Amino acid sequence: MYGLCDSFGCSKNTNIRLKLPAVCFIWQIAMIILFGIFVRYNEESDTHWIEHKKTKRNLSDIENDFYYRYPSFQDVHVMIFVGFGFLMTFLKRYSFGAVGFNFLIAAFGIQWALLMQGWFHSFGTGKILIAVENLINADFCVGSCLIAYGAVLGKVSPVQLLVMTLCGVTLFAIDEFIILNVIHAKDAGGSMSIHTFGACYGLAISWVLYRPDLNQSKRLLGSVYHSDVFAMIGTLFLWLFWPSFNSAICSHGDGQHRAAINTYLALASTVLTSVAISSLSKDKGKLDMVHIQNSTLAGGVAVGTAAEFMLMPYGALIVGFCCGIISTLGYVYVTPFLEKNLKIQDTCGINNLHCMPGIIGGIVGAISAAGATEYVYGSEGLAAMFPMVPRLQGGHQAAGLCVAIVFGIGGGIAVGTVLKLPIWGDPADDNCFDDEVYWEVSSEILAADLCAW
Amino acid sequence: MYGLCDSFGCSKNTNIRLKLPAVCFIWQIAMIILFGIFVRYNEESDTHWIEHKKTKRNLSDIENDFYYRYPSFQDVHVMIFVGFGFLMTFLKRYSFGAVGFNFLIAAFGIQWALLMQGWFHSFGTGKILIAVENLINADFCVGSCLIAYGAVLGKVSPVQLLVMTLCGVTLFAIDEFIILNVIHAKDAGGSMSIHTFGACYGLAISWVLYRPDLNQSKRLLGSVYHSDVFAMIGTLFLWLFWPSFNSAICSHGDGQHRAAINTYLALASTVLTSVAISSLSKDKGKLDMVHIQNSTLAGGVAVGTAAEFMLMPYGALIVGFCCGIISTLGYVYVTPFLEKNLKIQDTCGINNLHCMPGIIGGIVGAISAAGATEYVYGSEGLAAMFPMVPRLQGGHQAAGLCVAIVFGIGGGIAVGTVLKLPIWGDPADDNCFDDEVYWEVSSEILAADLCAW
Amino acid sequence: MYGLCDSFGCSKNTNIRLKLPAVCFIWQIAMIILFGIFVRYNEESDTHWIEHKKTKRNLSDIENDFYYRYPSFQDVHVMIFVGFGFLMTFLKRYSFGAVGFNFLIAAFGIQWALLMQGWFHSFGTGKILIAVENLINADFCVGSCLIAYGAVLGKVSPVQLLVMTLCGVTLFAIDEFIILNVIHAKDAGGSMSIHTFGACYGLAISWVLYRPDLNQSKRLLGSVYHSDVFAMIGTLFLWLFWPSFNSAICSHGDGQHRAAINTYLALASTVLTSVAISSLSKDKGKLDMVHIQNSTLAGGVAVGTAAEFMLMPYGALIVGFCCGIISTLGYVYVTPFLEKNLKIQDTCGINNLHCMPGIIGGIVGAISAAGATEYVYGSEGLAAMFPMVPRLQGGHQAAGLCVAIVFGIGGGIAVGTVLKLPIWGDPADDNCFDDEVYWEVSSEILAADLCAW
Repeated sequence: MYGLCDSFGCSKNTNIRLKLPAVCFIWQIAMIILFGIFVRYNEESDTHWIEHKKTKRNLSDIENDFYYRYPSFQDVHVMIFVGFGFLMTFLKRYSFGAVGFNFLIAAFGIQWALLMQGWFHSFGTGKILIAVENLINADFCVGSCLIAYGAVLGKVSPVQLLVMTLCGVTLFAIDEFIILNVIHAKDAGGSMSIHTFGACYGLAISWVLYRPDLNQSKRLLGSVYHSDVFAMIGTLFLWLFWPSFNSAICSHGDGQHRAAINTYLALASTVLTSVAISSLSKDKGKLDMVHIQNSTLAGGVAVGTAAEFMLMPYGALIVGFCCGIISTLGYVYVTPFLEKNLKIQDTCGINNLHCMPGIIGGIVGAISAAGATEYVYGSEGLAAMFPMVPRLQGGHQAAGLCVAIVFGIGGGIAVGTVLKLPIWGDPADDNCFDDEVYWEVSSEILAADLCAW
Repeated sequence: MYGLCDSFGCSKNTNIRLKLPAVCFIWQIAMIILFGIFVRYNEESDTHWIEHKKTKRNLSDIENDFYYRYPSFQDVHVMIFVGFGFLMTFLKRYSFGAVGFNFLIAAFGIQWALLMQGWFHSFGTGKILIAVENLINADFCVGSCLIAYGAVLGKVSPVQLLVMTLCGVTLFAIDEFIILNVIHAKDAGGSMSIHTFGACYGLAISWVLYRPDLNQSKRLLGSVYHSDVFAMIGTLFLWLFWPSFNSAICSHGDGQHRAAINTYLALASTVLTSVAISSLSKDKGKLDMVHIQNSTLAGGVAVGTAAEFMLMPYGALIVGFCCGIISTLGYVYVTPFLEKNLKIQDTCGINNLHCMPGIIGGIVGAISAAGATEYVYGSEGLAAMFPMVPRLQGGHQAAGLCVAIVFGIGGGIAVGTVLKLPIWGDPADDNCFDDEVYWEVSSEILAADLCAW
Repeated sequence: MYGLCDSFGCSKNTNIRLKLPAVCFIWQIAMIILFGIFVRYNEESDTHWIEHKKTKRNLSDIENDFYYRYPSFQDVHVMIFVGFGFLMTFLKRYSFGAVGFNFLIAAFGIQWALLMQGWFHSFGTGKILIAVENLINADFCVGSCLIAYGAVLGKVSPVQLLVMTLCGVTLFAIDEFIILNVIHAKDAGGSMSIHTFGACYGLAISWVLYRPDLNQSKRLLGSVYHSDVFAMIGTLFLWLFWPSFNSAICSHGDGQHRAAINTYLALASTVLTSVAISSLSKDKGKLDMVHIQNSTLAGGVAVGTAAEFMLMPYGALIVGFCCGIISTLGYVYVTPFLEKNLKIQDTCGINNLHCMPGIIGGIVGAISAAGATEYVYGSEGLAAMFPMVPRLQGGHQAAGLCVAIVFGIGGGIAVGTVLKLPIWGDPADDNCFDDEVYWEVSSEILAADLCAW
């Protein structure tokens, strides 16, 4: 079965022996040059810290921002590389591509994100001064591209993925700057800027790259027993570390503390409703691994924007409750609908995990910001949380959500059009979801394949 | 082979299409209502922190309890969901159930635990004020139910598991309150309240639910090569993060520090004796993965109660040394004995990993508390560690251990009796240890199965 | 296929039923006795901390070193046990041995390392006073032995591994003492003392234990699909937590902060050049999992020594850039060369992942130390970083590298000679890379094996 394409010749040339190395080298060299010109350590990661801390009310070393954020950073880092990577290993013959290309995209994306975000956020000095918070933001930025990867998993070449990431990071940085610094919306966990943007971007690309004959690869579009267990590694690390994701860049002290609690609760609630709907949707009440792997995470997405707010523990539970239902129903009804009616082929169901919950998250954020009162927040707390009066803040939040959607869809269509050019070495329709195309796969054939075909 | 039950009809109806969603929805809605009435943020996770910290000798943000405990919390969180979940994936066809039901139980249990523990511990105010320490305690509480799950793995329905968890968390909260707040025993790592209680609870349930014809499922009661590797993921994350487990709720500063060191050492020692006994117990000295997966963890269980004490590094090594031997011998001799003579079918061998080491831990705690001296602890240190004189403390520790055993066995028998009712959709004797019963499993049949049957 | 050796008798006796338990018991008992004599808690992990902190400018509990280093310690701990363990699971039938013996070696090694390093570093008091930094150093020390294990993976018995670890830890402690305390070289991430030493040690042992007829086990010297995915778990946790590895024992504040940033960047850069060279090296540009699993980590190794220096972000990228290329080319050209011409059989390619990048790391450290200026570091920063003037420091760094190489090769040849004695129960040439030799493997035979042979 494998090697068929080698012997008989395919309509598409998937040889990337020159393209992929060329792109990797050119971009990495560009990164080195740009980092050389622009990037330096900031005052907390520079050897001048020893002088700096004396000038600031005699800080202790432990008050270096590193100790506030590094544990959260590491959790986010695990989510990006292990979480997203393994979540996508569920396909029976695309585990190398899932975890390997995820690795490649993320490693490239974080470098470009440090530059793009740096240019927008520390423009005054002419230099980008980096510290642990920048690393977290770079990971966040790349997260949106990995979400987009979920929509096109198995249908694109690594060269396309690198182009998609370059453009995605660029769009993200602009989008995020507008949402956070122009509109002054709050978005601690990135429901809008990361999830909604990333999902819209990926779905729009998938729409442009629509493959009418994709059912020729249908034999590979499922899981085997062990690939589903691998995917659970991704699910669990995402689920577990989501409190760190949503709290990583919150304000010191109660902000990070509260964001972690809210996310913990929202996620717990999501699991129960995902299981309930999954069981309801199937004959004999059997559970579907796809739902357990994905929908259980929707609460974390949806509580992102409002994670730092005084959402209250029961508020977090309600958000999770609704998202578990909506996300699971999405897998049952919306994904087939999108493919049949809108011609959007969404391999991992990112619409259900990131797009719909992300939009809900944006709405929850707008409502809870608009409803904030001095009674709940305290006068100092309210002033510290929002840069404007609550009602106005609510409006700005809603505007931020719209920006994310517009950037995602618009950017996705533009980038998708570029990726449609026949120069990127993407696989033929009967060759999708197959690691054999871009990876050396040992000659052994799993019996699972023999039996399944 | 699969689908046999569908075609010919089984004696038991495992359809849970109404029961499971109903239980999930009812309980999650109840959680939302109860959280709405009772649960609020505490002063360290509330926006009033900004005012609060000024009133307390001008605290820095870094002295928010979040920064003391959040890294440990995340490690504990990984243990509960990845550690326990993957440890139980060793069965050849029950990996979905292991990791999936573990996920479901834990996500429900932590919510109920926050309430139950909250009612007991912050009763004065009428509100339960939560912070990161509560999240850790909730994870601990659920840990005891996951231990119990190990005894009945593959033999119960998810509905039964949810009932078992509801009751287990309730019993745990009462038990823990008596041990810590009435008897004033110390139990940082929960050797008594988590491990001994959880294991007794699970074993008692398994005893009540005894299945005389379980050998009809014998073909599924083993591992395949890769399922053993998956289980090692669970083992290693449990082993690695156990120092965080035992130190997570210790007192700030030296307490957490010492608990981590003691646990690290005890676990290291356990590995060597587990390997030694495993090799001795088999022909040609070959090692048994069951022992490596489980017995290597026994030292962490047994050092739990005394982790914060001045156990001394060599003391920790001795505890680990003994537990590695006892736990491995348990797998070789005690598990078959329990099944044959006491009619306790203990799928994962929780007696060897949690019950016996937990009891040892309680005894070690009692002895080391009774033997505490001012010479070793310093006068201030001794006062800070124990609420009463050492000899009396030792007696109270022993009393705590008895409470845990009584609650576990008594509670387990009561709950087991309820679970024996024929309404919960549990599998037939020839259908145990099979994911096919409660999960959509893709039609592929692993060759491993073909060859093994 | 299995059991062949049992039926017909092999030239070698692999029965370790007496040897392995004997070694485990004797060594563990020795550890207990030595810990009893020498090891105590230090002032930060002892109950006297409550008094100690008052005498030191009224320290807060949060300034206990535990809170500076424990999150990094846990990350390092994961790297040692999960990272190294799973990285070596790539072989089709040696996953138990990879992850299981890794576990055994590390658990023994950390105890012996605490003693050896303790004797060298806290000799004055007669007691070894331990705290979290000692645990990190013990993990580091064991890391070098696990690197060495990579060279002999599948070809030695667990008894040999324990002997190799005992000697390796001893040599490491001497080597490290000379490099850090006699020569006063800096080596935060251990490019020289951990990676170069460990790799030279392992390669020298492998050279002494050369097996001319190893191709008799050729059928097992490859991966299967899922074993490659397991190996990616190891790769990713190593890659993700490497910033913690290189920063774990750096100075508080900016030192840890900068080391994490430098490592993050070097690793990101390495991924792109590894992918590029991997694609260039194969027909049709297909990627090779061996390169992705290993070479992507080379940047972390090479940036180790200089991680704490003002290497500058672009400097870190350059280091990673070069190492990705060199390491991948190593897998393509150097590993076959070593086997054919130098008779070094390097199962995991540690020469490419640890030896060459480690040496580069040492050189980068020497150059960047020699080039340090007051302009870049600030006068206080420069004084805090280096114990001597930069140019001299550079020379000492180079001397440190030479010491590591000499100790590694010399020690490896000596230990290898001991391991060549026919008393350790090592496998025959046609029996290497097979878990069946030292593990109870369930009777099922994976179809993968059927098809591949």
